[in-house]
Amino acid sequence: MKLVIAVIHDEDSHRLTERLNKAGFMATKLASTGGFLKTGNTTIFVGTEKEKLDEVLDIIKKECKTNKQMSLLNPPVAGMPDGYLPYPIEVTVGGATVFVLDVDQYLKI
Amino acid sequence: MKLVIAVIHDEDSHRLTERLNKAGFMATKLASTGGFLKTGNTTIFVGTEKEKLDEVLDIIKKECKTNKQMSLLNPPVAGMPDGYLPYPIEVTVGGATVFVLDVDQYLKI
Amino acid sequence: MKLVIAVIHDEDSHRLTERLNKAGFMATKLASTGGFLKTGNTTIFVGTEKEKLDEVLDIIKKECKTNKQMSLLNPPVAGMPDGYLPYPIEVTVGGATVFVLDVDQYLKI
Ligand code: NI
Ligand code: NI
Ligand code: NI
Repeated sequence: MKLVIAVIHDEDSHRLTERLNKAGFMATKLASTGGFLKTGNTTIFVGTEKEKLDEVLDIIKKECKTNKQMSLLNPPVAGMPDGYLPYPIEVTVGGATVFVLDVDQYLKI
Repeated sequence: MKLVIAVIHDEDSHRLTERLNKAGFMATKLASTGGFLKTGNTTIFVGTEKEKLDEVLDIIKKECKTNKQMSLLNPPVAGMPDGYLPYPIEVTVGGATVFVLDVDQYLKI
Repeated sequence: MKLVIAVIHDEDSHRLTERLNKAGFMATKLASTGGFLKTGNTTIFVGTEKEKLDEVLDIIKKECKTNKQMSLLNPPVAGMPDGYLPYPIEVTVGGATVFVLDVDQYLKI
C-alpha cells in the first residue's frame, strides 16, 4: 500500500479528484497555502495498492500538467497615462508536487 | 515511532480526540473534504510509539465503528400529496480510513 | 528524500515559512487544531533531500523554540474588589512536534 500526498493548484483540484474517483481511487482534500506552489493550493491524500500507483501518478500528471497560457496580468488602472494598452503575457499554470510514502498498515473501519 | 493518519467523519472527531487525549495520545485535526468518506470529514494525525499503536487503533475502531441507524431522509415537502408519510430508512454512519506510517525521526521542540 | 511534517504554533508559522523559503525550502501550510499544541496551530509539510534534512530541522528548532515569557493572564474584570492588581505570570510559548518520513518517490510535475 502507498499513500500519495500531492500538493496541487486549487483550480485542478475538482477535476483531478473526479478523475481519480472515476478510476476507483478515493482522494481526501485538505486546503493548504503557500509553499510548493505560489497560488492557492490543495493537498490531496490518495491511498492505493502498490500495483496501481502508476495509474494514480499518470492521472495526476495528466490533470496537473504544467502548461503556458496567455493572461492579462497588467490591466489598466486609474492614473495610467492615456493610450496605455494591456498586453497578454505568458504565465505558467498547473504543476504539482507529489510525495509517495510507504504505508505500514492500512485499515478500513 | 508511528504516525497514524485517519480520515474520519466530522461527527466522530470531537469524541475521538477526547478519548485519545484521555489515553495520553495527542491528535492534530485537519479539516478535509471528499474522498474516502462522502460526507464532511476530518483528517487526524496521531504520533505514537510502536508499542502503543494497537491501543490507538483500538480507540479509532471503537469510536468510528460503522453502524446502521434509522433516519428520516424523506421528510414531506410542500406540494406532496395529502396523506404522504415520511418513513425511516437505514443509513450507515461512522467508518474511517486509516494509514499507519513509519516515522524515521520524531522530535519534540 | 524526506518529508518533514511539523505541527507548530500559528504565531510561528509565517516567520518559519519565510526562513525556510529563504533557505530554499518550500513549505506547504495546512490549518490544524488541537492535539500536540493546545492553542491554534498549523501543520507544515516540507520536502527535502536527505542531505539537507538537518538544515530544515535546525531552522524549525530555531524558529519554534520553546521559551517562557511573562503575560497578564488575569486582567481585572468588572466586579473585582477595589485594589485588585493584575500580575504577570510566566507562560510557555513556541514548541513544535516534528515527524520525519521517508519518501518512496518524489515527483515535480
Ligand atoms: Ni494556479
Ligand atoms: Ni457521517
Ligand atoms: Ni501559542
